[in-house]
Amino acid sequence: VVVFMFLGIDVGGANTKLATADGRVESLYAPLWRDKERLFEVLAAAKRKYGSELEAVGAVMTGELSDCFDSRREGVLYIKEALASTFNSVLFFDLTGTFQDASAVDRDPLAFAASNWLASATLVAELYPDAIFVDIGSTTTDVIPIVGGQIQARKTDLGRLQTGELLYSGILRTNIAALLRTVELDGGDASYGIASELFAITADAYLVLGDISEAEYSCSSPNSYAFLGREAKEKSRESALRRLARVVCSDLEELGERGAVRIAAQVKRAQVDVLAGSLARMKAEYGLETIVAAGIGDFIVREAAEVLDLHPVFLSAVYSKELAATFPAYAVAKLVERWSVA
Amino acid sequence: VVVFMFLGIDVGGANTKLATADGRVESLYAPLWRDKERLFEVLAAAKRKYGSELEAVGAVMTGELSDCFDSRREGVLYIKEALASTFNSVLFFDLTGTFQDASAVDRDPLAFAASNWLASATLVAELYPDAIFVDIGSTTTDVIPIVGGQIQARKTDLGRLQTGELLYSGILRTNIAALLRTVELDGGDASYGIASELFAITADAYLVLGDISEAEYSCSSPNSYAFLGREAKEKSRESALRRLARVVCSDLEELGERGAVRIAAQVKRAQVDVLAGSLARMKAEYGLETIVAAGIGDFIVREAAEVLDLHPVFLSAVYSKELAATFPAYAVAKLVERWSVA
Repeated sequence: VVVFMFLGIDVGGANTKLATADGRVESLYAPLWRDKERLFEVLAAAKRKYGSELEAVGAVMTGELSDCFDSRREGVLYIKEALASTFNSVLFFDLTGTFQDASAVDRDPLAFAASNWLASATLVAELYPDAIFVDIGSTTTDVIPIVGGQIQARKTDLGRLQTGELLYSGILRTNIAALLRTVELDGGDASYGIASELFAITADAYLVLGDISEAEYSCSSPNSYAFLGREAKEKSRESALRRLARVVCSDLEELGERGAVRIAAQVKRAQVDVLAGSLARMKAEYGLETIVAAGIGDFIVREAAEVLDLHPVFLSAVYSKELAATFPAYAVAKLVERWSVA
Repeated sequence: VVVFMFLGIDVGGANTKLATADGRVESLYAPLWRDKERLFEVLAAAKRKYGSELEAVGAVMTGELSDCFDSRREGVLYIKEALASTFNSVLFFDLTGTFQDASAVDRDPLAFAASNWLASATLVAELYPDAIFVDIGSTTTDVIPIVGGQIQARKTDLGRLQTGELLYSGILRTNIAALLRTVELDGGDASYGIASELFAITADAYLVLGDISEAEYSCSSPNSYAFLGREAKEKSRESALRRLARVVCSDLEELGERGAVRIAAQVKRAQVDVLAGSLARMKAEYGLETIVAAGIGDFIVREAAEVLDLHPVFLSAVYSKELAATFPAYAVAKLVERWSVA
């Protein structure tokens, strides 16, 4: 029996995600800005794990934006080198939806920047030719209109930031100070300014609200200071409440759990509202009625869909929770399988 | 000849500032969240430098809010311990404007939290009994109404965040994603969302605009990763432009210097507008016409004053640039001198 194994790799700035075309997935927290050389180790480990049966690797990325690189060009070339020096047969998915070899990346690196959402949307478009594809992850949210099987989104992150097709916030790593300008605390009209530090992140809000578990809090907490070797106990509900209170220069002694939970609820409301705003524009512009949701934050999609009376389809139900959470890696695995077999 | 030396110490979360009543100042970048034990070293060095001639030390703080502490109470007690174990005669300035010894801090720590602005305002109120005192530093901005010599501000950070007497943004360390929601780039109506990472800070904007020098960029840059030993060259104008471009998921190849400078200008505009909004409310509420400005960001005060037709007085001109930049430390030195001599 000859086994054809196809591996999809999605190199992000914070996480590198791996998926096989037959549905095995893993997500590795490997922040490029902290240690970009570690990408080589992560990929080498993947090769040891899958290498003997590996037919082809398909790759997408967003990690080129990491601020360890001076430019996206430099970042794409670094990530290309890490992949191409590890695997014999790696194919890079470009922004026209075509696989290319490493030499094509050398010729035009920017054609391969921020490509991961396009792999997902390409696969989704086959099953759902008229839908808004939403992938809400740890850090960012893609909101991609698909009309008659055609992907309507702009092709660069900059363009998508203008159209609302990229919302740069997610359900784990996003600084609360980037989502909220003020919060209400006491049920009255009074609103309170927010500290502009990295005191609390969306993971703190969703842990406190019960939308994610401690195990799903899969990034560093703002005051874990992992680089100093302090990680213990910083993902408890209590520590998350403390971080939320700190956002208004306060603590649980002053604010109480109730006050901190109120802040968490406003984080969720803000994130739902931002997504709903983007979805409402696309619903109006393209006449779309269906949302196809991937990513670890699909509970946000559920609420936004309800507000807008859109029909949500959850890829976690169609595939599995794990596949939906690492959908670009899975999508590029499926696409490279088809490309190679064709 | 007997020399009476009075030292004021302002322990912040990022910087510890020292000033003598006769006008010598220094500011030491010593982030508590990175290494709180270092505070003991910084204070020990201060004792070696000034100790032999030291009559009394006056102390104020804001560092208790640092997220290395679980609560402000814990933070105040830690800072108290660092000071009291180093100096024989340290007096803590409380939120009623009185000096107390360490045992009083033990009894009621929160009476000593976030006290530094009150020392400044107390000194300023003597010279300018009807004025809005503004201290715009690296991280925060205090906006304190003084009417008939009486300080009108709320006494807690939480209270001041509600009234606009504390604006939690400054001219060096503030994440641009906490100041701006969108930016314009091409002179048209199009606005672009902002990446919620810590990609660029206000110091990047003001360096690019020429409002501060590389030497005045006295905090870590977002991608210097000082804790990893990479600090070199990350405060150049070029690197600041790159960080600004990254805020819209872009780079200088795509955006050009012109685009990055446009982002910087919008950062400044936002910061001036926020301050002007707070000043306008106080001008209306208290009928105040004069601003007394301290802090390294008084160029922002100048612009906000112009917008509102308020009369600005700069403590950098009254005293010196250095004293105005570390005004709470100087103020508490002067106040403890008077307290001790009286």
